[in-house]
Amino acid sequence: MKELEDRIVQDGVAKAGNVLKVDAFLNHQCDVELFDHMGAEWARLFAGERIDKILTIEASGIGIACVAARHFGNVPVVFAKKAQSVNLDGEQYSTTIYSFTKKKEYPVIVCKRFLSASERVLIIDDFLANGCALEGLIEIVESAGAEVAGIGIAIEKGYQGGGDKLRERGYRVESLARISSMNDETGAITFA
Amino acid sequence: MKELEDRIVQDGVAKAGNVLKVDAFLNHQCDVELFDHMGAEWARLFAGERIDKILTIEASGIGIACVAARHFGNVPVVFAKKAQSVNLDGEQYSTTIYSFTKKKEYPVIVCKRFLSASERVLIIDDFLANGCALEGLIEIVESAGAEVAGIGIAIEKGYQGGGDKLRERGYRVESLARISSMNDETGAITFA
Repeated sequence: MKELEDRIVQDGVAKAGNVLKVDAFLNHQCDVELFDHMGAEWARLFAGERIDKILTIEASGIGIACVAARHFGNVPVVFAKKAQSVNLDGEQYSTTIYSFTKKKEYPVIVCKRFLSASERVLIIDDFLANGCALEGLIEIVESAGAEVAGIGIAIEKGYQGGGDKLRERGYRVESLARISSMNDETGAITFA
Repeated sequence: MKELEDRIVQDGVAKAGNVLKVDAFLNHQCDVELFDHMGAEWARLFAGERIDKILTIEASGIGIACVAARHFGNVPVVFAKKAQSVNLDGEQYSTTIYSFTKKKEYPVIVCKRFLSASERVLIIDDFLANGCALEGLIEIVESAGAEVAGIGIAIEKGYQGGGDKLRERGYRVESLARISSMNDETGAITFA
């Protein structure tokens, strides 16, 4: 998606440690008009797929998923939680994932009553690198007996391999910007 | 806002410990059509106010704020973070707030470059009870030299006093549903 690639080049910053900072428009300050265009693009890409629900994970996925849902007939958005809380009761699907960014494991939790066996679920997230978070979300969808209808990603770091691993497993992954290389010394970002 | 009150009566659950569970439509599963109507209602209430930016706090505020922003000319949404991360660099506004729900203190952080002295900021959040989270957000807006144009809340627990404290300080607080009492034994929820 050219608009997103252009925005990454304009406002994204490649940093040491393989970090791409996009906090000016994606995951701290949010450009909701861009989110709307991203939603329209996923709707175009997944046209013809029945989507009953969108699943994402807190925190940065939530705004993108909620704005995108308006392009999928206002289907409900469920966001997985990364911690237990007094507000989480009843039976839960839960798994543990490792975050390379935060260098720690954390739980991924969805209350059972928000996923049903008959549902086709579109998973949406801001980033795909190693794919650990997505593997956790897929595991939860499939534990519910529901079906992953597709995976919509804003920015895929293609060279980290998580996306291709998921595609090899048969999932349809639609990333709106696929980065093939980043250089934190020159600031260069190239797309696949 | 009658639609939100009706939804709270229909799908909300008053639980022991003064907890109102609205995870079926507000803060775990998200009804984005309801969020859209909430955004339209805040836009009606704050018509005539110049709003340059919306500020919220992760995680449950993000979806509501991003959908609502579309009724405010797609102004940027900034969400305050509740933890440090490798993605947070540069100068920050930060304060500490106490969560009665989680019974612990946590930081509230916004990168300085996402708030400017000239801006009029609408603060949006899902809940207002004691008002601690909002006081943190107000402190951050005012540290930036920006102005709080208003505060838009989905559900205010009026009897906990946080909203009235903020109104006494001169802030305009528009809560779409104001609960005057809850009874976890009968399940009764009444509105102001």
